[in-house]
Amino acid sequence: MILFESDYLEGCHPSILDALRETNLKQTHGYGSDPHCTKAADMIRYIFDCPDAEVHFLVGGTQTNATVISSLLKPYQGVVCAQSGHINVHETGAVEHTGHKVLALPPHEGKITAEQIDAFAQAHYSDFSFEHMVQPGMVYLSLPTELGTLYTKQELLDIKEVCRNWEMPLFIDGARLGYGLEASGCDILPKDLPQIADVFYIGGTKQGALFGEAVVFSNPALAQDFRYNIKQNGGMLAKGRLLGIQFETLMNEGLYFKLARHADRMADRVRDAFRQKGFPFLVENTTNQVFPILPHAAIERLSKDFGFECWQHVDAEHDGVRFCTSWATPESAVRALEDAVRDL
Amino acid sequence: MILFESDYLEGCHPSILDALRETNLKQTHGYGSDPHCTKAADMIRYIFDCPDAEVHFLVGGTQTNATVISSLLKPYQGVVCAQSGHINVHETGAVEHTGHKVLALPPHEGKITAEQIDAFAQAHYSDFSFEHMVQPGMVYLSLPTELGTLYTKQELLDIKEVCRNWEMPLFIDGARLGYGLEASGCDILPKDLPQIADVFYIGGTKQGALFGEAVVFSNPALAQDFRYNIKQNGGMLAKGRLLGIQFETLMNEGLYFKLARHADRMADRVRDAFRQKGFPFLVENTTNQVFPILPHAAIERLSKDFGFECWQHVDAEHDGVRFCTSWATPESAVRALEDAVRDL
Amino acid sequence: MILFESDYLEGCHPSILDALRETNLKQTHGYGSDPHCTKAADMIRYIFDCPDAEVHFLVGGTQTNATVISSLLKPYQGVVCAQSGHINVHETGAVEHTGHKVLALPPHEGKITAEQIDAFAQAHYSDFSFEHMVQPGMVYLSLPTELGTLYTKQELLDIKEVCRNWEMPLFIDGARLGYGLEASGCDILPKDLPQIADVFYIGGTKQGALFGEAVVFSNPALAQDFRYNIKQNGGMLAKGRLLGIQFETLMNEGLYFKLARHADRMADRVRDAFRQKGFPFLVENTTNQVFPILPHAAIERLSKDFGFECWQHVDAEHDGVRFCTSWATPESAVRALEDAVRDL
Amino acid sequence: MILFESDYLEGCHPSILDALRETNLKQTHGYGSDPHCTKAADMIRYIFDCPDAEVHFLVGGTQTNATVISSLLKPYQGVVCAQSGHINVHETGAVEHTGHKVLALPPHEGKITAEQIDAFAQAHYSDFSFEHMVQPGMVYLSLPTELGTLYTKQELLDIKEVCRNWEMPLFIDGARLGYGLEASGCDILPKDLPQIADVFYIGGTKQGALFGEAVVFSNPALAQDFRYNIKQNGGMLAKGRLLGIQFETLMNEGLYFKLARHADRMADRVRDAFRQKGFPFLVENTTNQVFPILPHAAIERLSKDFGFECWQHVDAEHDGVRFCTSWATPESAVRALEDAVRDL
Repeated sequence: MILFESDYLEGCHPSILDALRETNLKQTHGYGSDPHCTKAADMIRYIFDCPDAEVHFLVGGTQTNATVISSLLKPYQGVVCAQSGHINVHETGAVEHTGHKVLALPPHEGKITAEQIDAFAQAHYSDFSFEHMVQPGMVYLSLPTELGTLYTKQELLDIKEVCRNWEMPLFIDGARLGYGLEASGCDILPKDLPQIADVFYIGGTKQGALFGEAVVFSNPALAQDFRYNIKQNGGMLAKGRLLGIQFETLMNEGLYFKLARHADRMADRVRDAFRQKGFPFLVENTTNQVFPILPHAAIERLSKDFGFECWQHVDAEHDGVRFCTSWATPESAVRALEDAVRDL
Repeated sequence: MILFESDYLEGCHPSILDALRETNLKQTHGYGSDPHCTKAADMIRYIFDCPDAEVHFLVGGTQTNATVISSLLKPYQGVVCAQSGHINVHETGAVEHTGHKVLALPPHEGKITAEQIDAFAQAHYSDFSFEHMVQPGMVYLSLPTELGTLYTKQELLDIKEVCRNWEMPLFIDGARLGYGLEASGCDILPKDLPQIADVFYIGGTKQGALFGEAVVFSNPALAQDFRYNIKQNGGMLAKGRLLGIQFETLMNEGLYFKLARHADRMADRVRDAFRQKGFPFLVENTTNQVFPILPHAAIERLSKDFGFECWQHVDAEHDGVRFCTSWATPESAVRALEDAVRDL
Repeated sequence: MILFESDYLEGCHPSILDALRETNLKQTHGYGSDPHCTKAADMIRYIFDCPDAEVHFLVGGTQTNATVISSLLKPYQGVVCAQSGHINVHETGAVEHTGHKVLALPPHEGKITAEQIDAFAQAHYSDFSFEHMVQPGMVYLSLPTELGTLYTKQELLDIKEVCRNWEMPLFIDGARLGYGLEASGCDILPKDLPQIADVFYIGGTKQGALFGEAVVFSNPALAQDFRYNIKQNGGMLAKGRLLGIQFETLMNEGLYFKLARHADRMADRVRDAFRQKGFPFLVENTTNQVFPILPHAAIERLSKDFGFECWQHVDAEHDGVRFCTSWATPESAVRALEDAVRDL
Repeated sequence: MILFESDYLEGCHPSILDALRETNLKQTHGYGSDPHCTKAADMIRYIFDCPDAEVHFLVGGTQTNATVISSLLKPYQGVVCAQSGHINVHETGAVEHTGHKVLALPPHEGKITAEQIDAFAQAHYSDFSFEHMVQPGMVYLSLPTELGTLYTKQELLDIKEVCRNWEMPLFIDGARLGYGLEASGCDILPKDLPQIADVFYIGGTKQGALFGEAVVFSNPALAQDFRYNIKQNGGMLAKGRLLGIQFETLMNEGLYFKLARHADRMADRVRDAFRQKGFPFLVENTTNQVFPILPHAAIERLSKDFGFECWQHVDAEHDGVRFCTSWATPESAVRALEDAVRDL
C-alpha cells in the first residue's frame, strides 16, 4: 500500500535526524534562546532577503495562525480570508477561540482578489452601522491555497496595495510555501515575500521537518512582545533548539527548496498520468497536490494499492480526489501510480 | 561549563532517536491516529493500571494545562491552585486567555491542603453574592510542586475527597511526574494516580523525550470530544506519531522510571554536598531540584564553572538558588559539582 | 419629519413610566431578587404556558444572545444560524468574542430550513476530519427574522426535530417576538414557543419597554447557574427591578400583544400603500417592517418628510428601503405616509 | 424595615423620571447618537474640565470595567489592582472572561500604593523569564475603594507618575465617584480626575440614576473605535438617549454632587452614632459606607428594624457590618438608626 493521502505521512529528511543526533547531549538554554535558533533565523533573513525581519519558530500551523492573527487584531477586528481558507474550515475555530471572527469571502479556485477585499472594506466603512459589524483588521492568504493553486506576483502586489490602503496587515500562511515557490509557472521568489507580506510563515511540518513553522515578521514593528504571545498560546517549545536545528538543516544549501522541487516534479508526473487518460481535474494547479475527477470504478481500483483522499463529491458517478506528493515520495511510488493509472 | 539550570537542556534519550530513525520513512496517518500512539496509550493504561482511561498526547506543558483546564470548566468557573502554581505564574496567563480565572490559594512549601480547598469552596457557596464571584470549578496540583516538594498519598486522598464533595474534578500536572514517583520517601505508586486524579499528565519534555506530555483521563467521561479541544488549542501535532514513538520508548521496560530515578539520585548527591557544608535550603525536598541558600561569594565561585538559577532573594548576603538534575546529568558532572562545593 | 427608521425611536409605553414612578422610592434588593422580577417571571410562565420554565431578565439583545449562546456551547462548538442572522452580522462579533464560531447557512427570505440544518450536521459528522472543524452545537433563529418574515409552526417543529436528533438546543431570538405573533397569518401561539424552543427571549426594547429582554428557558436544565453567566457578561442590572417592573406592566392585560398588534396593523397599511402604487418588495412579509423597492426619485421625495433606512441596493435606478412601525407609531404618521405614497 | 444594605435600593431621583416623561415620545436615533448624549457629554467635559476628552455612556459597572479594560490591554497583558478590587472579587471573572489576568496586589484599607505598583512592574521586567509571565499593562483603582476609603490627590499623582514610567494607562472606577469627591477631607476636585487618570468613569447607578455609567477618556487616543468595543461587549443601549437624559439631569446645576453630599452627610451621622457608643470600625473612612464592628447582640437588635450587610467576620463575638447611605436616604431613616444605636 502506497499512501498519497497527505504530505505529513513520514518522519523527516534524514539529515535532520543526523543533526539531532549530533547535538543531542549538548546543553543549551531553552525556549528559543539557543544558538541554533539564532543561526536559523539569520539564514532565513539572508535567503528571504529581509535583514530587519524578526523570526520566530513555532510547532504547528494552527497554533501559528491563531497566535499571529490574535497578536495583530484588536478585539473588535476580524481576519479577512477565503471561505475555503484553512483558518475558516480546518482549525476547529482556533481563531474564533481567541475572540475574533473570520470574515470569509467566496474564493475562485481557492483564491480571493484585491477587488474583493477592497469592496469588502469599502462596504464596511460605508455602512452607517459599521460599528455594529466586525471591522476587517487584516488579510490572511495561503500560498499555495488549500486547492494547491498559486497567486501570481501581480495578484499579491495588488492585494498588498489594498491592504495598505485600508491599514490591514497582510499575513501569508506558507504551510506549503516551498511547494508553491518551486512549482512550474510560479513567478514569486523567496525575496518577494517580505516585500509583499507583513508577516508570513515558512512551513516545515509538510516539507521535510518533523514539525515546525518559521514565522517571519518582515514588518518587525508588528512583532513587538511576540514571545509573550507564543507562550500564552502554548507554542513556546521548552527545547526550542529542536526548531532551530531543523530549520538550520533545511535552509542549508537550499535543502528546503530541493525537497519541494522534488515533490512538485513528482506531482507533475501524477498529474500528467491522469491527464493522459483524459480525466478532468477539480482545479488546474502545479503544486504538490493533484485533484483528478475519477469515476467510482477507477477510485475503487486505485484504492486497492494506493491511499488518497476523497475530496469532493462531483456527481452520481464521479468524485474529486486528492493525491499528495511530498519531499519523501520515492520515484518508485510515482512510477507504480503511473502504471496503475495507465491500466485503468 | 556544566549547566544545572533546568531539566530540558539536552535533546532526548538516545533510544528515542533510534526509534525515530527506524520508523522514519514508514507511512502513517496523521494527528495521533497511528499505531504508535495506540500502543503507547495501551502501555500507559497498563503501567498506570487504568484500563478504562482515555489517553491523549500533546506537545508541551502550558498547552496541556490550558487545554485540559478549559475543557473541564464552564465559562463562569475558575481553577483552584497554589499561588506558586505554574499556571498562576509561568504560563503568561494561558488559562485566563481561555477565559477562566485562576483562584490562587497561599501555599506551604508549594502545596495546598484539603482544608484550604474545602474552606474556599465553603466560603464561595455561603456568600450571599456568590453569583458575583467566580465559581471554583476544579482543582489543579503539581506532583512534584514547583518547589520540588511532594504530596503524600494521604494528602492527595484528602484532596480528592474534598473535590468529590464539591463536584470539582482534580487535575494533576505531572510535568516532572517521574522525578516525583522515584523520589526517596514518595509513597505514591503509578497505579495510585488514576485512583486519585480525574485527569493527570505524564511529562515527557523534562524526562527524556524531545517533547511531549501524555494526558490520562482516568475519568473518561471528562474526555468527551477532547480531540476537538486539542485541535482548537493548537496542540494536535500533524505527525502525531512522534509523540507515540517517544512514549512507546519511554514506557518500554520502565525506561521512564529508570531515567527519573537516575536524576533523583544525582540530586540527592548534590543536596548532600550542600548539606555537608552546612548550607540551609529554601525548602526540604527529595526530587530532582535542589534549592540551597548560598552566600554571594559562594554563588560567584560556583558560577565560574556551573550554570544554575537564582531563585529567590533571601537577605543582603544570601540568595536561594536552584540546581536541577535530569535524566541526562552525567555522574561526572555531579562529581565536579560535589568537588566544587566541598572546596567552597 | 416623521421617522420610520426603526422600532426603538421613542421611550416607552406611558404605563411603564407610571409604574416606575409609583415604585420609585420603594426599597428592594438588587440584581433581580426583587418581587417585581418574581411576579413578571410568573406572569410570563403563565402566559406562555410553561410552568417549569426558568425566566431571567437582561438589558439588551446583543448581550442576551452572547450570554445565552456562550452558556450553552462547549468551547469547540459553534452556533448554526442564517447568514443574515443578527448574531452573524450586526453584533460586532459578540459571539466570536466569547470564543465561538457562528456557522452561517445561506437563508431564503431570512429563514433557514430543517433540511439545511440536518444536512450541515450530517456533513460535519461524516467528514473524516470532523474534529478539525467546529462542531455544530446549537441552532439560533429569529422570530421574526431580520427581514420581518416568519417561520410557520410546522417549519419550527421540523427544525426542533432535527435539533433533537443532533442534540443541539434550539434558541429563538424574539427581539420582535410580539410583532411576529400578532402578524396576520402567523400560526404560532405564545404557548407553542416553549414547546418548540429550548430557550427563547421576549423582546422588550423594541416593543414598548425602555429596554429589557426576558429570557425563557423552557428546558430549565439548560439554565443551571445562568445568573453567574449574566453577571460575567455584564448583564446583571443592579436595579434589576427596573426589568421586573417593565415586564410586569407589559404582561398585564395583554399590553405586550396589544402594542404589537397596533404596530403590525400600521405596517399593513404602509405595505398596502406601496402595493397599491405598484411597487414591488424586497420580501413579502406581514410584520412591522416593510421593504418596498423604490426608484431613486421616490426615495428622494419621501426623504423630505420621512425618515427610513436604505436597506439594499437593487439596480442603477432602484433601492430597497425599510419602513418600521412600532408600538408608538401614531395613526396620523401612517396617514401622512399613505398620502405621500399616493402622491408619488 | 429600613434598608441600609446598599446604595441601589431605590429607583432614581424624581427629576430623572420627569425628564424621561417629557422626552418620552420624541423620536431620536439610537445607540447614543442622539442630542441628549451629545449634551450630557458636553456637560461632563465642562464640569470635569477636559475639553478634549471622549465620553461614552454604558449601562452598568461590570460591563464598563470589562469593556474599558479589554479595550486597553494587549492579549498577554493583565490589569494591576488591589486584591479587594471589584474586578478581582465581585464581577464573576468578567475581566478574565475577556482573556486577561487580574494582577492583584495586597491592599492596605482597600488601597494600593505607587511603590507597590512600581515594584511589581520592576520585578516583572527584571525577571529573566518575564515573557512567561503576564505583563502588567494598566492599573485599575476605585475612588472610593470597596472599603469606602479615599486616595489623596498626592497618592494618585504618585501612581500616575509610576504608570507613566511603565507606560501603563491608569483607569479609575468611579462607581461611587460623587460619594468620594463630596466626602469630608477629600482633596480631589472633579477637574483633577482627567489630569490623573487616562480614563475614568462617573457612576450613575449608585448615585441617583436608574442605571448608567459615563466613561471619560481624558486621553482620547485610547478611545479609538471604542464604540465597536461597547457593542461587542453588549453595552450599547438601543435607546441610548436614556443614558444621555439621565446624565444631562444629573449634571444640571450640580445635582450629581448635591445628591452625593447628602449621602455623605447622612453617613457621617451614622458613623458618629456608632462612634459615640464606642464601637470600633473595620476601617476609618468618610464616604457613604460605614463599617462598624458590632457584638452579635447589637447586630441582632438592629436587624429587627434595619437592613444592613454582614461584611466580615471579626471574632467569636463580633462581626464587621456595613451600613450604606445614598442620595435617597431620608433624614428620618438616619434619625431612626441614630436612636436605635443610642439605645443599644
